Amino acid sequence: MKEKMHLLRQKLIEADDLEKAAAVLSWDQSTYMPPGGAAARARQTATLAQLAQEKFTDPAIGKLLDELTPYAESLPYDSDDAALIRVTRRQYERMTRIPAEFVGKMSEHTSQAYAIWAEARPANDFARVQPYLEKTLDLSRQLAEFFPGYEHIIDPLVGFSDYGMKASSIRRLFAELRKELVPIVQAITAQPPADDSCLRKRYPQDQQLALGKEVASQIGYDFQRGRLDLTHHPFETNFAVGDVRITTRVKENLFGECLFGVIHESGHAMYEQGVRPELDGTPLGGGTSSGVHESQSRLWENLVGRSRNFCEFFYPRFQAMFPEQLGDVPLEAYYRAINKVERSLIRTDADEVTYNLHVMLRFDFEMDLLEGKLAVKHLPEAWNERFLADIGIQPQDDKDGCMQDVHWYGGLIGGAFQGYTLGNILSGLFYEAALKDHPDIPAQIRQGQFDTLRNWMTEHIYQHGSKFTADELVMRITGGPIRIEPYIQYLRTKYGELYDL
Amino acid sequence: MKEKMHLLRQKLIEADDLEKAAAVLSWDQSTYMPPGGAAARARQTATLAQLAQEKFTDPAIGKLLDELTPYAESLPYDSDDAALIRVTRRQYERMTRIPAEFVGKMSEHTSQAYAIWAEARPANDFARVQPYLEKTLDLSRQLAEFFPGYEHIIDPLVGFSDYGMKASSIRRLFAELRKELVPIVQAITAQPPADDSCLRKRYPQDQQLALGKEVASQIGYDFQRGRLDLTHHPFETNFAVGDVRITTRVKENLFGECLFGVIHESGHAMYEQGVRPELDGTPLGGGTSSGVHESQSRLWENLVGRSRNFCEFFYPRFQAMFPEQLGDVPLEAYYRAINKVERSLIRTDADEVTYNLHVMLRFDFEMDLLEGKLAVKHLPEAWNERFLADIGIQPQDDKDGCMQDVHWYGGLIGGAFQGYTLGNILSGLFYEAALKDHPDIPAQIRQGQFDTLRNWMTEHIYQHGSKFTADELVMRITGGPIRIEPYIQYLRTKYGELYDL
Repeated sequence: MKEKMHLLRQKLIEADDLEKAAAVLSWDQSTYMPPGGAAARARQTATLAQLAQEKFTDPAIGKLLDELTPYAESLPYDSDDAALIRVTRRQYERMTRIPAEFVGKMSEHTSQAYAIWAEARPANDFARVQPYLEKTLDLSRQLAEFFPGYEHIIDPLVGFSDYGMKASSIRRLFAELRKELVPIVQAITAQPPADDSCLRKRYPQDQQLALGKEVASQIGYDFQRGRLDLTHHPFETNFAVGDVRITTRVKENLFGECLFGVIHESGHAMYEQGVRPELDGTPLGGGTSSGVHESQSRLWENLVGRSRNFCEFFYPRFQAMFPEQLGDVPLEAYYRAINKVERSLIRTDADEVTYNLHVMLRFDFEMDLLEGKLAVKHLPEAWNERFLADIGIQPQDDKDGCMQDVHWYGGLIGGAFQGYTLGNILSGLFYEAALKDHPDIPAQIRQGQFDTLRNWMTEHIYQHGSKFTADELVMRITGGPIRIEPYIQYLRTKYGELYDL
Repeated sequence: MKEKMHLLRQKLIEADDLEKAAAVLSWDQSTYMPPGGAAARARQTATLAQLAQEKFTDPAIGKLLDELTPYAESLPYDSDDAALIRVTRRQYERMTRIPAEFVGKMSEHTSQAYAIWAEARPANDFARVQPYLEKTLDLSRQLAEFFPGYEHIIDPLVGFSDYGMKASSIRRLFAELRKELVPIVQAITAQPPADDSCLRKRYPQDQQLALGKEVASQIGYDFQRGRLDLTHHPFETNFAVGDVRITTRVKENLFGECLFGVIHESGHAMYEQGVRPELDGTPLGGGTSSGVHESQSRLWENLVGRSRNFCEFFYPRFQAMFPEQLGDVPLEAYYRAINKVERSLIRTDADEVTYNLHVMLRFDFEMDLLEGKLAVKHLPEAWNERFLADIGIQPQDDKDGCMQDVHWYGGLIGGAFQGYTLGNILSGLFYEAALKDHPDIPAQIRQGQFDTLRNWMTEHIYQHGSKFTADELVMRITGGPIRIEPYIQYLRTKYGELYDL
């Protein structure tokens, strides 16, 4: 069995090498590649992705998995070998159901669709993307159909990023959350909006980047095993447990775009940097789901980075770095500015309270589109109507309406958005559990100490990589299923105090 | 046949995608990768290299080549299809003779050997690298033995980088060159050395980089299809005809390290950027040999970049950028400083006159080592003896003696060095031919115009990629074989005037 496990690992690592190489090419494309490189790069990345898929779906791996299953069943559930066989089998079965030809077609289509969207969005030209989006929807449906026996057609797509989650369970969580959120949003937005003018001065790029690096380093992102670069659409990417990179963008007229972006990506990255090195290069070597990943980016960005304790430690440093811009702005004003809640158009700019409403409407649209209840051509009007009902304002155009997010235009319809709100819910859950074990974490944050919190996350979440599903992690940590209460409680306490609710 | 050609191209491009991906990973490793990424990166690059080799040596390619050979023979020699079949067959036969297992062993050994050398060189510890170098020699011999029927054991290794060249022809060229060079070096070094103190002031890194970019751009390196980054050991690399990158290093106490390095790499890069896009992604899509490649880097660096005409155009700009350092240094003094000839220890720092003597002794050592005339353990003393005889000074240690170049420690013994001097010889030959067609090129350079020269190179050399061998290019351009006279004539005229010989 040892030999078979060794052989399985070798084959998995070879496939992973190709995937990680594709990730390097993609990072390069988003950071440093000159314009002339685009055409060949698309082809090179596609070749790598296809070969990675071929290597991963090699029937020899299927055979090894069959032979190793009795061995896995003889081991404790949480042993590395059992988890590797279990998680690999799950992914292997998923991948072998999708024909390589379909993967090629999908990849070709989505890169075309993305290119069209990138041109059509600034031109506010929904008609131009419509046929591409229709094809994306068609392909997304076909993809789901490779996994018959689902309760809802979105379930297989959701399962790719949040294994174990389904339309039914997500709908229930989201409905509970909405019931709690709507009154909070109403109560806050009934008051005069917070003044965030202190953030809207001129903050030079180099200083913002330097500050981002300093903060990321202080909270525990390891620059010996990572780096920070500029890009258009910030992301975190992982080439190995020793090379987990983050990217950011800077708006010189908006303090926070860079800083909170960097903290957000650092949250993702610390998760990947915290995986046990023994799991690296295998299907266990990375964050387990979109929701758990987002729980870390959102926890560090919002529950930590936008907390009063965090500000008490860092704000004097910010003032020292930007004396002209922040020197005479009191901490309280800064704290209120970075936690301004408002009804706004763009999901990625939304505050942490309204953010989830943005996500929920997208998830509902994905279900409606996949079910055939909503035709792509009617998406703009449906969007605007629902947006007004949920967020309380009316988009002026499709550019900042149903064309604002890349997800549908460069990938799938279905499975792309639920992770953000699951992440918010989980961030509250995990933070509460960490505080229960270490009630002095807030006091430590006020001292600029983040080790206890990060080590707790490493112990309970990061080190395990993908060994456990989101549900399993929650069960191990809290002894029960996912609950929205800790997150709601967090929002109530913080915004109750801020807005005197 | 059309269909078979299409299939052949597709298969070649797939293999090329993997090679180019490996090149991206390697560029990243040399420029931006954090230290923690090293272990996984070595494995990832090795996986890509091995798969590229597997794809390229696919028997289906061999079969297509067999089927297409009659078609190739029916076409004009210089047609794209004929050249693709001819050059691919040559490479295919070469690659299929080397067992994949040997490639893996070689690649593993050389990355180990490189790592040891990188530590042992600063410690001046030849004993530490000796066993690795012995294994490299052994593997180099084994590699050559896969190609029986050679005249000299170095010939197959030379043929990898300079196809068509052999020990016998190179020895003859080098002997002729040595006969001419030695008296020139003696005459120059009998005089007091040139004063290059103006280059040895403080030149801030950012300004040097900005200047390098400006000059590269002006001579015709296209930044829309390339970029310049910092690294330890500068190189040029090509991911596609639309993405050809250069790297440099900056010494703040030495003007020229960056500037001439950038011009040198721009020469390599303009060659790659000038290849006809139709050839991209195939074995024709890149420079044809090490010698022809070096001819371009050396031509632009030395024949152009260190010429009086070039200085007349650019030097006022340099003075404006560095008024404190160069403001009161006359052009003549700068021109003499950048063309200082001296007996020195390090090949990469050598001037263009003595440079070839550094190369020739290495080529002779490679032959002696491969023939078994010289044992690795005797290399240090043999080096020092020969160095004194040829260059006229005695290395103080192995660090700056036989351990100074990475080539033997991170690759093969044999075939690594001859290209540099072939390049110098060819730079003279090609420049003379360009001047014959366009006698006003020097006057244009004095005006900062480089298009005529670059377009001539594109027409006669760059556009063809690897369609023709070095010998064929020279025959097409000059109607005869490679000759040293134009290069010697160039050196005689330039240094005769500089040193009043």
